Amino acid sequence: MTTKKTHTVIFQPSGSRGPVKRGRTILEAARDLGVGVESICGGKRTCGKCKVVIQEGFFEKFAINSKMENLSPVTEEERHKLKPEELSDGYRLACSSKIKGDVLLFVPEESRSGGQIVRKAAGELTVDIAPAVNKYYVELEKPTLEDSTADLERLLSGLEQNHKLKGLEMDFTALRSLPDVLREGDWKVTVTIWDGREIIKVEAGVNDTMMGLAIDIGTTTVVGYLTNLRTGEVVAIDSMMNPQVMYGEDVMARITYAMSHEDGLEKMNRAIIGGLNKIIRNTTEKAGLSPEDVFELVLVGNTAMHHIFLGINPEPVGLSPFPPSVQHSLDVKARDLGLTACKGANVHVLPIEAGFVGADNMGVVLAVEPHKSDEILLIIDIGTNGEIVLGNKDRLLSTSCATGPAFEGAQIKYGMRAAPGAIERIKIDPKTKEVRFKVIGREEWHTEFEEDVGAKGICGSGIIEAIAEMFKAGIIRKNGTFNAEVDSPRLRKDGEGKLEFVIAKKEETSIGKEITVTLSDVRAMQLAKGALYTGCKTLMKRMGITTVDKVILAGAFGSYIDREASMVIGMFPDCDLDKIAAVGNAAGDGARIALLNKEIRKEADKVATKIKYIELTIDPDFQTEFMRAMYFPHMKDQFPNVSHILEKIPE
Amino acid sequence: MTTKKTHTVIFQPSGSRGPVKRGRTILEAARDLGVGVESICGGKRTCGKCKVVIQEGFFEKFAINSKMENLSPVTEEERHKLKPEELSDGYRLACSSKIKGDVLLFVPEESRSGGQIVRKAAGELTVDIAPAVNKYYVELEKPTLEDSTADLERLLSGLEQNHKLKGLEMDFTALRSLPDVLREGDWKVTVTIWDGREIIKVEAGVNDTMMGLAIDIGTTTVVGYLTNLRTGEVVAIDSMMNPQVMYGEDVMARITYAMSHEDGLEKMNRAIIGGLNKIIRNTTEKAGLSPEDVFELVLVGNTAMHHIFLGINPEPVGLSPFPPSVQHSLDVKARDLGLTACKGANVHVLPIEAGFVGADNMGVVLAVEPHKSDEILLIIDIGTNGEIVLGNKDRLLSTSCATGPAFEGAQIKYGMRAAPGAIERIKIDPKTKEVRFKVIGREEWHTEFEEDVGAKGICGSGIIEAIAEMFKAGIIRKNGTFNAEVDSPRLRKDGEGKLEFVIAKKEETSIGKEITVTLSDVRAMQLAKGALYTGCKTLMKRMGITTVDKVILAGAFGSYIDREASMVIGMFPDCDLDKIAAVGNAAGDGARIALLNKEIRKEADKVATKIKYIELTIDPDFQTEFMRAMYFPHMKDQFPNVSHILEKIPE
Repeated sequence: MTTKKTHTVIFQPSGSRGPVKRGRTILEAARDLGVGVESICGGKRTCGKCKVVIQEGFFEKFAINSKMENLSPVTEEERHKLKPEELSDGYRLACSSKIKGDVLLFVPEESRSGGQIVRKAAGELTVDIAPAVNKYYVELEKPTLEDSTADLERLLSGLEQNHKLKGLEMDFTALRSLPDVLREGDWKVTVTIWDGREIIKVEAGVNDTMMGLAIDIGTTTVVGYLTNLRTGEVVAIDSMMNPQVMYGEDVMARITYAMSHEDGLEKMNRAIIGGLNKIIRNTTEKAGLSPEDVFELVLVGNTAMHHIFLGINPEPVGLSPFPPSVQHSLDVKARDLGLTACKGANVHVLPIEAGFVGADNMGVVLAVEPHKSDEILLIIDIGTNGEIVLGNKDRLLSTSCATGPAFEGAQIKYGMRAAPGAIERIKIDPKTKEVRFKVIGREEWHTEFEEDVGAKGICGSGIIEAIAEMFKAGIIRKNGTFNAEVDSPRLRKDGEGKLEFVIAKKEETSIGKEITVTLSDVRAMQLAKGALYTGCKTLMKRMGITTVDKVILAGAFGSYIDREASMVIGMFPDCDLDKIAAVGNAAGDGARIALLNKEIRKEADKVATKIKYIELTIDPDFQTEFMRAMYFPHMKDQFPNVSHILEKIPE
Repeated sequence: MTTKKTHTVIFQPSGSRGPVKRGRTILEAARDLGVGVESICGGKRTCGKCKVVIQEGFFEKFAINSKMENLSPVTEEERHKLKPEELSDGYRLACSSKIKGDVLLFVPEESRSGGQIVRKAAGELTVDIAPAVNKYYVELEKPTLEDSTADLERLLSGLEQNHKLKGLEMDFTALRSLPDVLREGDWKVTVTIWDGREIIKVEAGVNDTMMGLAIDIGTTTVVGYLTNLRTGEVVAIDSMMNPQVMYGEDVMARITYAMSHEDGLEKMNRAIIGGLNKIIRNTTEKAGLSPEDVFELVLVGNTAMHHIFLGINPEPVGLSPFPPSVQHSLDVKARDLGLTACKGANVHVLPIEAGFVGADNMGVVLAVEPHKSDEILLIIDIGTNGEIVLGNKDRLLSTSCATGPAFEGAQIKYGMRAAPGAIERIKIDPKTKEVRFKVIGREEWHTEFEEDVGAKGICGSGIIEAIAEMFKAGIIRKNGTFNAEVDSPRLRKDGEGKLEFVIAKKEETSIGKEITVTLSDVRAMQLAKGALYTGCKTLMKRMGITTVDKVILAGAFGSYIDREASMVIGMFPDCDLDKIAAVGNAAGDGARIALLNKEIRKEADKVATKIKYIELTIDPDFQTEFMRAMYFPHMKDQFPNVSHILEKIPE
């Protein structure tokens, strides 16, 4: 038996992989591969910040057999710095674990270094501010031996006299603190009432701080918008990678994890609740407030995220006929979910439309309002899953298509998140095949040879443009194969003899090698865009239409993709380019709208039941349509709005 | 410095005290003093069952300075058998702790040996069975691709179709288990609905088990009645000493403990919740069921017990003007209180009348129904506190009097709980002053000299009869002093030269010494009965009446006292002896009634606001009346119904 001198190490969630010399630590390997792992002490084994989680088992996707035995034994430092439950969950310190074999590992959010750009920023909304919680100030008479009315009854009568509020109930946790707060405030208090019926908090004296948190749980990214419920202003935003990513990258992988591990649901639920508590802490801290100032939360997320967040088994959602556990919106006490906010606060969870078309899409609908539109809208929410809504005030159809995370840069060899160093825009000269690109974090396009441009990989919008440009330049054909006859040093064969196209030269990257687009990258994009196109077309067929009035691209990613490029590769049916609009993170906007206006919540419940869900896979034409849609832009369909471009493409 | 050879050891809650030789263990001391401390291994230091809690500090009442240093150091066995938090809370093993100085200690419920008679037994009730929870069986259509309605919406539509139930909400914990239960039951399920509006549990298949628990938290005793909500039958009873006793024997002591210790409220709350969870476990186990089968709980208790149970600061209840935090009944999720029952179960807490007249008295009112009576009733609930309600359907007054726990045998030298070995009945021959008595656990009266009768002490009903008999026999005078001229060897001086009367001779007891009634025992009874009498009389004065139609004695203890004896010593104003009725543990009965009929709960809330509370201490005549009422039976008032007895008493 010979001992190999190098081993394969794969870092999740970035997917960065490479050969690493035996005996190097994980922290050293991370630096070699350009993976940001936090280490305040610089590898001196003192700070304990470089936690990573070893994933054990054989991972077919990566052809890697990852084992804890492939690392040096757990050291004394690690036993000291890691909690017992972390040790049993496979946590190690990157600085102290030496590589002795192949390893797949996960870098948890807390250990990741390097800034992240919150692409899910919060725009202006037009919404009447009428939140579910309101504050009322009241001054009460002190009790005497002649009038020793109980505290709560005294408060209720004060609220009735001063504010005409009747029939109120009181949250139990608010009642617990009532006698102390009344006396602390010398019988002058501020009362927070939820939904005009439940006292959820009593504070001493005057206190008009009233915050709410809109939460968007994406499969990959979680964002929280701390919002002033009086002004509607977003006072702080925090986002993080969904901590469940370590249990599976997409929805189906997480459902499978819940099915195949007895404590799988519990672990994933704990992960997201822990993450949200961090977001609550971070945003309130930024605003100089405390979690107790969050009086109401509104949550959107796809059906699986919704179920796991609530601690409901998502298994049925992953098995035909895919019924969710609940469709209607819910109001759950934050404390029942383990969230640390105001003790009496409620979490309002938007309704689910059907199956995979979840509360996140309901958020999109609230933001775009197709149910009030005369024009027929095709709303495409591009996240890890693709959700589509088609229609207007008369009729609405929806579906979900398994695009996978390719649009987000995952499953792409040099794919990465939209973070500094990611190539986000690309242009290829049709004649010379020379490439210009723009990197996130740099103002200018990279126009000529320039060292240390710092490119690390390609993000989602970059990969779409790369494919479109390669197609337009004749480097790839309609069917997605490379045209080997293209005469350019950038088109080359990789180690295994497969063709790939160089986007960034070695000197232009910070990873010590070229950044390329491979054949399997093109295949991944074909599957993703084919699924999306088929979804759009199936809905249009059901609606009996062949064109739409407008295409609305929702999802943060939708704001960054090039409209022309996406149409050139056929991500969705032809449409006037001027009629394609990006609306940003509409799911998050919908959560903020529902946070600010309680009437809109009722509207959401009504609309949710009106949207008819179309199950794509049982459509008799699905297979044929999907196969045709894998072509660039399509095997048969015409694209008059970009025909001037398509016509120029060399055969 | 000389080292004393004996030290004072006092065992709480029994109050048993005595000199103990230096170097003896606490377990040996307990045996010497007749205190039951559990010890399965017989003191071999192996079982760890003999836990006791050392109370540190100077206790004025006992003139004892108790310190942990007055015991041998903590041994290895103790470190092994006791949890760290127990060690820091002052826990020791009785077998391993040797006495080196004066010690006051508490024997927790779990360490007490010897059977206890549940005097709070459950009688028959006349009540329409209409509980707040109901079960419905429903069979649903399975979801298909054509109809993938969500689980909850499917269930709701099934309940509407089959049982005409509309507008239902669902408890969040029940929703969490919904998808699994529906599939486990093959879409045939039993649904439990609370108050016609909230689904609190869904069970697979047919399951008609529906239990409720009525809970009576007394200051001294806690009882739970596991009740079949279909039949009303009490299927199991469990009782225990209120575990809060270690923090204070009466209501004021516990309020003081909450005020003077930062975590005092939390500790007492944890103690009662832990105790109730034990009762839930014990009763359901006896019935062959699980805590999950308890679908509803109803709780009664005085205002301080009510507040501490809910985790509400009881301090204002103990300070003039004594307002409670809430008067109205409450429905709180059992899980919010830390109670282990069905996860969606509610605890209904009966309303408080006013100040100290709490939810326990409301239970008494529900059982006795003075608000429906034509006759004027004087209802006296004798527990550790005395609560009085006077009136009929036209008008109701109430008050509370600080009787202290003397009626329950506490603060009495040889006082003990109503447990085997307690003297419960006493007769004294007026001429010979010879004593006959009856001991709990023995069928027969003790009529002549008999060794090993096994008397250990005197319980509450015994002490009342002892005082009455001593008064009738001329051994004590109207003003409570001993008549030293009585010629009987039983009237003797104790070590300090104070007179006392021997009830049981040394040979008749199992404690190796005589059981006596001392001067301070008589004083304690004078204070207790004086307070009670003053309360009754003050209410009657306010009502403008001098006699009542009926006297109702509530409280378990009320069932055991001799009506004639209690009138002879003047516990309450004169009344036809035939019109004095004992109704047992009416507070517990009221809790059972409210558990079985939800309409009566609404009635309770209405009645609670109608009963006018009279604060005794601000009555201008209070001091004078109290002083006069300390006499046997009274300084001035006449007792025509027992005048034939009173006239015979020698001056």
